[in-house]
Amino acid sequence: MSDRGVLHLEEEILGDDYIDNISVDNLIFSMHEGKLKVLLAKYTQGYASNQWGLIGHWARLDENLNDAAARIVKQTSGVENLFLDQLGAFGQVNRYPERRIITVAFYSLVIYDDAKLVGGKNTNELAWFDVFEVPNLIFDHNVILSSCLEHLKYKVRHEPIGFNLLPEKFTLLQLQEIYEAILQKPLDKPNFRRKILKMNLLIDCKERQKNVAHRAASLYRFDLDVYHKLREFGFSFEY
Amino acid sequence: MSDRGVLHLEEEILGDDYIDNISVDNLIFSMHEGKLKVLLAKYTQGYASNQWGLIGHWARLDENLNDAAARIVKQTSGVENLFLDQLGAFGQVNRYPERRIITVAFYSLVIYDDAKLVGGKNTNELAWFDVFEVPNLIFDHNVILSSCLEHLKYKVRHEPIGFNLLPEKFTLLQLQEIYEAILQKPLDKPNFRRKILKMNLLIDCKERQKNVAHRAASLYRFDLDVYHKLREFGFSFEY
Repeated sequence: MSDRGVLHLEEEILGDDYIDNISVDNLIFSMHEGKLKVLLAKYTQGYASNQWGLIGHWARLDENLNDAAARIVKQTSGVENLFLDQLGAFGQVNRYPERRIITVAFYSLVIYDDAKLVGGKNTNELAWFDVFEVPNLIFDHNVILSSCLEHLKYKVRHEPIGFNLLPEKFTLLQLQEIYEAILQKPLDKPNFRRKILKMNLLIDCKERQKNVAHRAASLYRFDLDVYHKLREFGFSFEY
Repeated sequence: MSDRGVLHLEEEILGDDYIDNISVDNLIFSMHEGKLKVLLAKYTQGYASNQWGLIGHWARLDENLNDAAARIVKQTSGVENLFLDQLGAFGQVNRYPERRIITVAFYSLVIYDDAKLVGGKNTNELAWFDVFEVPNLIFDHNVILSSCLEHLKYKVRHEPIGFNLLPEKFTLLQLQEIYEAILQKPLDKPNFRRKILKMNLLIDCKERQKNVAHRAASLYRFDLDVYHKLREFGFSFEY
C-alpha cells in the first residue's frame, strides 16, 4: 500500500481497509429503446472529481475481486445476484496520475427496468449513456469500454447473447436490436429471423405482445438447454 | 507498496522498483510428442522456495503488465516476440500467505523446439510438464492452470487453434493431437480430417514428411486469411 504521507490533495481519501493500488471497474450494460446503454457515474472525489467514468471503486483488503465488483454494482444500480464476468486487468503504467493502479474490469448485462439507480458514497450522479455517445471518461475508461465492446462483438458471433438483457418473453425485433447494437450495423430482418429460428434456440410462446400501439408481435423465450449448449459448443453467426 | 518493515523472512526480497502486491504469471504451453505441456519453474526464494509454480514474477513500477509478462517469458524460455494473451486477474483474498497479492495471468503457445530454457534469477529449475500431470503448485497456480485449460477448451470449439503451436508445415495428425490434448478425448481420425478439411483452413503443401520411420504423411499449412476470418467470425467445431 502506498505511503499515505505523500497522498496528494487530488487523491480520494481511502480507509485503511482498502487496497489503494487495485480498483475494480464495472461495465453495466442494458438495452433501452433499441439502444445499447452503459451506466456511468459522475464522481465527487479524487482525480475523478466532477467527471464521468465507469462504476468503479477500490477493492477491500478482505474482499475477493468479484465480490468487490458485485458490491459496487449493487450499491449503484440496485441490481443483486446479477451476471458478472471479468473482462480483464488494465495496468498500463500511465493509466492513473502519479500512482500505479491496476484496475480489474467486470461487465454485466442487466434488464433496464430492474435497475434502480441509487448512487454510491462517492458519486453524485448516475446515468445511462448510449455506448457510442459517451463523453470523455476518466483515466483509461474509454479504452476499457472500447475493449469491452470488441469483446461483446466477438461473443455475439460465437455464442447466443441476450439472456441477461431481455425479459423472459421477448419479440424477435428486441433480439435483433441487441445484435444490431453490438455489431453496430443494421441487419436484414427476414435473414436475421431465418438464421435465429434455424438455431432452435427460441421457443414460440404462442402469445402476442399486449398494449402496444403497433401490430402486436409474437413473443419468444430462450430454450435454456439449447442456449447453454450453444454457449459451450459455439456456432457461427454470419451476417 | 507495503511497509517493508513487516516483511517476513519467508518473503522474497524485492527491489524498490517493483510493485509488491501485483504479480504476473505465465502459462507457457507447447506440444511435444503428442502431449500438451506447460512450463513450470522451481523457485529459490520467498514462500515459493523449493516448490513448482507457473513462470511468474513481480511487475515493475515502470512496466506495463504485458511487458512484464513478455520479459519473464523471454528470460525463462528464451522465446521472444511470442503470442501472449491475457487470461485474467486472480485476486482471491487468501491466494497468497499474509499479504494481498493480485496476479494477472497470461498464456502463450510456443513451438517446443523454439524454447531454450535458461532459468531466471529466482528459479533453479525449469521443466515441461504434461498439463494433466502437474504436481501441487504454489499458491492458486493449480486453479489458474485449470482455468486456462477450460479457456483453451472453449477456444478450440470456437476458433481455429494451432498456429502458434505447430511448425509452418505440419501433418493432420499433429493438428489432431492438439485438439485431442485440449479437449482431453480421442477424436475419430476420418471424422476429424473431414471436418478440418471442409473448413478450407488448410493448404496442402503437396509434400510429404521426410526422414520418418513410418509411412510419410502429407504436409499442410494454414491459410492465414481463412485462419483470421474464422478467428473473428467463429465456427462450431463439434465432435
